[in-house]
Amino acid sequence: MSSFDHSTFNHRKYKPFAPVAIENRTWPDQVITKAPIWSSVDLRDGNQALVEPMTVEQKKQFFALLVDVGFKEIEVGFPAASQLDFDFVRWLIEEDQVPDDVYIQVLTQARPELIARTYESLKGAKKAIVHVYNSTSTTQREQVFRMDMEGIKQIAVNGAKCVKEHAEKYPETEWVFQYSPESFTGTEIDYAVEVVDAVTEVWQPTPERKIIINLPATVEVSTPNRYADQIEYFCRHVKKRDCMIVSLHTHNDRGCGVAAAELGVMAGADRIEGTLLGNGERTGNMDIVTMAMNIYSQGVDPELALGDMDRIISVVQACTLLQVHPRHPYAGELVFTAFSGSHQDAIKKCLANQTDNKPWDVAYLPIDPRDVGRSYQEVIRVNSQSGKGGVAYTLEQEYGLALPRWLQVEFSPIIQQYAEQDGGVVDAESMKSLFETHFMTGTTPYKLGKYDHSKDEVDTIHAELIGAGSKINISGKGNGALSAFAEALSKHFNVRVDIIQYQEHALTVGSDSQAIAYVQTNIDGDRFNGVAIDNDIVSASIQALIATVNQKSTQSKQEAVA
Amino acid sequence: MSSFDHSTFNHRKYKPFAPVAIENRTWPDQVITKAPIWSSVDLRDGNQALVEPMTVEQKKQFFALLVDVGFKEIEVGFPAASQLDFDFVRWLIEEDQVPDDVYIQVLTQARPELIARTYESLKGAKKAIVHVYNSTSTTQREQVFRMDMEGIKQIAVNGAKCVKEHAEKYPETEWVFQYSPESFTGTEIDYAVEVVDAVTEVWQPTPERKIIINLPATVEVSTPNRYADQIEYFCRHVKKRDCMIVSLHTHNDRGCGVAAAELGVMAGADRIEGTLLGNGERTGNMDIVTMAMNIYSQGVDPELALGDMDRIISVVQACTLLQVHPRHPYAGELVFTAFSGSHQDAIKKCLANQTDNKPWDVAYLPIDPRDVGRSYQEVIRVNSQSGKGGVAYTLEQEYGLALPRWLQVEFSPIIQQYAEQDGGVVDAESMKSLFETHFMTGTTPYKLGKYDHSKDEVDTIHAELIGAGSKINISGKGNGALSAFAEALSKHFNVRVDIIQYQEHALTVGSDSQAIAYVQTNIDGDRFNGVAIDNDIVSASIQALIATVNQKSTQSKQEAVA
Repeated sequence: MSSFDHSTFNHRKYKPFAPVAIENRTWPDQVITKAPIWSSVDLRDGNQALVEPMTVEQKKQFFALLVDVGFKEIEVGFPAASQLDFDFVRWLIEEDQVPDDVYIQVLTQARPELIARTYESLKGAKKAIVHVYNSTSTTQREQVFRMDMEGIKQIAVNGAKCVKEHAEKYPETEWVFQYSPESFTGTEIDYAVEVVDAVTEVWQPTPERKIIINLPATVEVSTPNRYADQIEYFCRHVKKRDCMIVSLHTHNDRGCGVAAAELGVMAGADRIEGTLLGNGERTGNMDIVTMAMNIYSQGVDPELALGDMDRIISVVQACTLLQVHPRHPYAGELVFTAFSGSHQDAIKKCLANQTDNKPWDVAYLPIDPRDVGRSYQEVIRVNSQSGKGGVAYTLEQEYGLALPRWLQVEFSPIIQQYAEQDGGVVDAESMKSLFETHFMTGTTPYKLGKYDHSKDEVDTIHAELIGAGSKINISGKGNGALSAFAEALSKHFNVRVDIIQYQEHALTVGSDSQAIAYVQTNIDGDRFNGVAIDNDIVSASIQALIATVNQKSTQSKQEAVA
Repeated sequence: MSSFDHSTFNHRKYKPFAPVAIENRTWPDQVITKAPIWSSVDLRDGNQALVEPMTVEQKKQFFALLVDVGFKEIEVGFPAASQLDFDFVRWLIEEDQVPDDVYIQVLTQARPELIARTYESLKGAKKAIVHVYNSTSTTQREQVFRMDMEGIKQIAVNGAKCVKEHAEKYPETEWVFQYSPESFTGTEIDYAVEVVDAVTEVWQPTPERKIIINLPATVEVSTPNRYADQIEYFCRHVKKRDCMIVSLHTHNDRGCGVAAAELGVMAGADRIEGTLLGNGERTGNMDIVTMAMNIYSQGVDPELALGDMDRIISVVQACTLLQVHPRHPYAGELVFTAFSGSHQDAIKKCLANQTDNKPWDVAYLPIDPRDVGRSYQEVIRVNSQSGKGGVAYTLEQEYGLALPRWLQVEFSPIIQQYAEQDGGVVDAESMKSLFETHFMTGTTPYKLGKYDHSKDEVDTIHAELIGAGSKINISGKGNGALSAFAEALSKHFNVRVDIIQYQEHALTVGSDSQAIAYVQTNIDGDRFNGVAIDNDIVSASIQALIATVNQKSTQSKQEAVA
């Protein structure tokens, strides 16, 4: 049947990576016992890789998240290459948005006019990292720049001089200089050391006033241990190692960006550049959430506050328009689930033994899901009466509801509990009724009245919320109607509403071209799931969101009674 | 604003992993120069972790893919624990579905009644791997099984004996025995060796008739180098190393499942268990596609045919209902894109230098996208006249079309080309017209006539295709109407149609509750994108699919003319 042409699939066109010759490497015996310095490049490398770059509004929201999570170094853009980035840097400085202990970092190529423009964008900054780079790899030298080693080194040296001269003009700012030999992993190691030594010679750092030397795996080209070898070799051979912070910046082309960063820290690096949940060029930058949580799970302070994972997910998804994969470590919707009976049994036994004063030790759960605001989910597949399929199949067949997977997982224990009371079999009508009772709660105590939604650079919503006979007027702004409505609710009820999941589809069974919306929110630390049906998709989503707020309000009342 | 309670986020509740003491480790100097033996566990570990387990139809489709890709060892289920798995194994054997050079593998716990049932399922198999396991970790021994080391070892030994006895009853089958000390990474290493030695003693393998010893990172608990240390230590200390195939089975809890498998092979392992694109419990099993492509990119034969990546994506998505992440290495929709001008410039220069007889050497593209049926995508963001947003923003604002990102990427060069001819600015009407011309091609030469869609265990579709004045009747089966229609088209036109992307939403602008469907297909190796609008969502999707077939047919005609 296949007429696929397999002849283009040919490994012979590739040459293997040439490893660095290193003797007596020490990194394999090291253990990470302290968090590295973290630098977020979400607003630069991450943003640069989006089909729809972030709006100013989204950048502000993302920056606020990064500050709250605890980043002290944040790359905020490439101001000399992008007016939007320039304006954003100006806004940060002029509106005094940068906390006193945070360095904003900006990227620039090693060209005088770009460096000048970069410093313009930074006027008045309290603390700033000027990050200058040029490409040093064999491929880039020979094919892109068509210059020899000396010429490429000179670009770096001239850039470094230029960076230094400009900085001297603005002594009110606390400057830190950063240099990256871009495409480091494709650069002959001794040459990389030579270029960095030349830059160091210009900048004259001291142990008290260090520079940052960043060694990018711009493209991941080998197994992560080879990258660690490069880092250890570099740290051994570079001059003035004690006057520099060695920084790593890995990408994920071979699916090993986190591994490379971890082994690189063991090999001597001090600092990690990456993004939250791994957005970035092509396969992404290394994911700081995963690496920090890996460190956390070993009893080491990650020095980032990642407990409010749902807020991180919500902001990252809203700003990048990239969904977090269901199996993403520590964050995905399926990572704290167990489907197999033997896993469920083991987890149950371990959880029963777990006490507060003994270290976490539960089979199949590397961390306590509650640490990141989640819970362990036992998923039991209950068959419908027909025996033909599960709950989701039945609801789709009978009522045209295509439940998103995350909602199936949430619905599972509800059905399970009902089935246990009722002898194991649940008919379609009961399923639907349980579904409505638990999720379609968008009318009591609050329901949606009139609303007005306008879209300009941001979405604005003014709406009536009808509850207990009275009308409340609320309004909010955001990216999209749903996020504007969430802001309106947040302000009115003084809660935090994060949207974790959102899905909608046209209804074709038993309805007249209606739409159904499924929303999952996190409200002040708890997750809720709401569903609503309406002729209009925007109305349906808003009502689904209200459904979750109603559940929160019912829960709070019950807690008050109890 | 946040009322989030950060107190539960506390690293102090975790204890660090205790590394294996190993002297003179040799693995960091090794390079992978030969593909390991691959074993797919998609139909077992992968399937077990799905909210909606695969139907029989889906399992058949997945098995056919695995055979075509070139797997010689395929774990097809846990027949003693699941009647569905049992029936599937029977179907494979009775319907003679297993090629002569393929081993089917089945999992069983080390319990006599389960082992007996397992052999029942395998009656008549030509070649089979019986994979028996029990948990050996400290946590499982102490908290779940409440047995001492000796007791747990005895479970393994008894299981091994039982496996051997049953095998002797069926000499017509070529049996291979496999043992896994489950939760190996949480097991004291010397004890793991002791248990395996005891199993080996029962099975009495020889260098000619090897057994498989599989060492699972059931949960990923440390950096990947520590796993490699465990593997090297194990290989050095286990008895009869030359009589066994050492196999690895890693999970991705710390995002390093591929890295652990790679370093583990360097540490001496011969065989890898994993899944296509990484489905599996929690964070997933290690992804064989990524690891095999990593090997491929180093000039080594991966011994798997992964060139028809779109078919792999299509089948995996259809069977697991998990979307491939846009940044998934080698497979995601964004991994061969470049957004930044300097990247685009470098790629252009390198591509111009690239010739067939010199090794691949292109900045920012670790492999040639064409090897996996893809192309390099340069994405240039063209602003609309309003200056407020890009193409996607304008189409959404003006016409209510919420273009999926993959379609934005595909649309970008079309808009770009038009803009270059027309002075850089494209108004909304031209955008819509370009959009319709290129994607909404569902009427010529073929359009959808009447159709009948029925859903039982599988979906069946009978449809009229109207073209050039005549009506053609086609029919097909599949999971879902779209996949059934794709099969109908495949059969009729004798092509392979794989569905890569599918998205739909309700239209709310300028329409009366209609739905729009966006479909991306791969037809005989080329990707096409189709869009259609209809009152009915199923009709819209089918028409979008026809749109892609029409593009293929137009392309073929042009090629015939040229």
